Amino acid sequence: MSAASKPKLPADDYISLMLFYQAYAETIDNGDLNGWPALFTVDCVYKIQSRENFDRKLPLATMAFESQGMLKDRVYCIRETLYYEPYLQRHVVAAPVVTSVDGDTVHAHASYAVFRTKPDDITHVYNVGRYEDTLVKSPESHHGWLLKSRICVFDSDLILNSMIYPI
Amino acid sequence: MSAASKPKLPADDYISLMLFYQAYAETIDNGDLNGWPALFTVDCVYKIQSRENFDRKLPLATMAFESQGMLKDRVYCIRETLYYEPYLQRHVVAAPVVTSVDGDTVHAHASYAVFRTKPDDITHVYNVGRYEDTLVKSPESHHGWLLKSRICVFDSDLILNSMIYPI
Amino acid sequence: MSAASKPKLPADDYISLMLFYQAYAETIDNGDLNGWPALFTVDCVYKIQSRENFDRKLPLATMAFESQGMLKDRVYCIRETLYYEPYLQRHVVAAPVVTSVDGDTVHAHASYAVFRTKPDDITHVYNVGRYEDTLVKSPESHHGWLLKSRICVFDSDLILNSMIYPI
Repeated sequence: MSAASKPKLPADDYISLMLFYQAYAETIDNGDLNGWPALFTVDCVYKIQSRENFDRKLPLATMAFESQGMLKDRVYCIRETLYYEPYLQRHVVAAPVVTSVDGDTVHAHASYAVFRTKPDDITHVYNVGRYEDTLVKSPESHHGWLLKSRICVFDSDLILNSMIYPI
Repeated sequence: MSAASKPKLPADDYISLMLFYQAYAETIDNGDLNGWPALFTVDCVYKIQSRENFDRKLPLATMAFESQGMLKDRVYCIRETLYYEPYLQRHVVAAPVVTSVDGDTVHAHASYAVFRTKPDDITHVYNVGRYEDTLVKSPESHHGWLLKSRICVFDSDLILNSMIYPI
Repeated sequence: MSAASKPKLPADDYISLMLFYQAYAETIDNGDLNGWPALFTVDCVYKIQSRENFDRKLPLATMAFESQGMLKDRVYCIRETLYYEPYLQRHVVAAPVVTSVDGDTVHAHASYAVFRTKPDDITHVYNVGRYEDTLVKSPESHHGWLLKSRICVFDSDLILNSMIYPI
């Protein structure tokens, strides 16, 4: 077999990145809300935005946070002030595609499907789309990576009931 | 780029583990029921349990088998004694996360979504959850790994009709 | 830990193959119809076939194309002559399983789930199944690989409305 096209990341780094994507999903699916902001840098961006608005560069987003502090505020809000019916989420996240590497900074994206289960109900497709991400390698992070920016670009303009937890 | 955080498995081992997860899914999806027990050790545990019961450490499980022989018995039961409407399953299994390695024994988990298709019907989301696994490296196994324990922890308490095949 | 069972591809090659599967999905999901034929060899085969027909080796297929030219023709057809309601697709594709390697030719398959979103509607499970593929390593291709043959073997005989875009 001829030589492979040069990979954007060494195999070990790519696998660790892929596992970070799974760790992120797992943190949310396990309901570990306090663990969620810890996956981001202090100066992070996090948005959940419909594909229609993302593609047209329109600013409207379902959620838009511009620092780790705002993520922590959202967690506080979910835990202490919002009134809602709880539900379970299950992410199935595909292998991330690295588009560029600049020092310790990586641009990548990955398709996801999130399934939602309410108490005493069957499981529904809740939100599908792709993560558009900027990540930084971070040896002090438990998972080796932190999100500098994550935009969850989802396909449907309609959201089943309300969206409480992060995607 | 700085050194990657040390991976829990060498790249080749991780990839072979990831492929074992796909091989498991494929065995079931292809209806190769006889091939299913061969993916386990002789003294295996296999359970399908709701997340609610798993998290509370309650014993009730939808299926619970405690040896490869019991898995073979289940297969015999499906093939010869159960009366049911057949259906197709399709697993989409995410990359497994290795939590610890002890010699040839690996603890890992992975999120899955299983879709079910009945004859002359559309495809439905059937069962989503995560595999909580203990695996052993086994050079004599065709796939390089065997399951010592697999608990399928699923999100919904409701099961669409009956559950016949393994997850 | 004992030596891993010998992998069918070196780690870097496997990862590049896995990323090709994601690149294929992304090309379709992004609506990049002109990019789709470029993922195939000139003398390619592309089919979308129900599992029932595939397993029985029956010829009937939902789509069946026998050259890159026919794929381009399909794209022209979608863009210029078909009358249909547009929809968005989202693929979640599992890690591909390599079954054999012969020089630069690889046989592999992978499970997929495709979700469809129509304007002003929620997301539905649209088509689940597996890709049965023959790929060739191609250094001149942007992604390092080209499809010589792809058969999308889907589980349900029923298709939600019509099928316009490739799977």
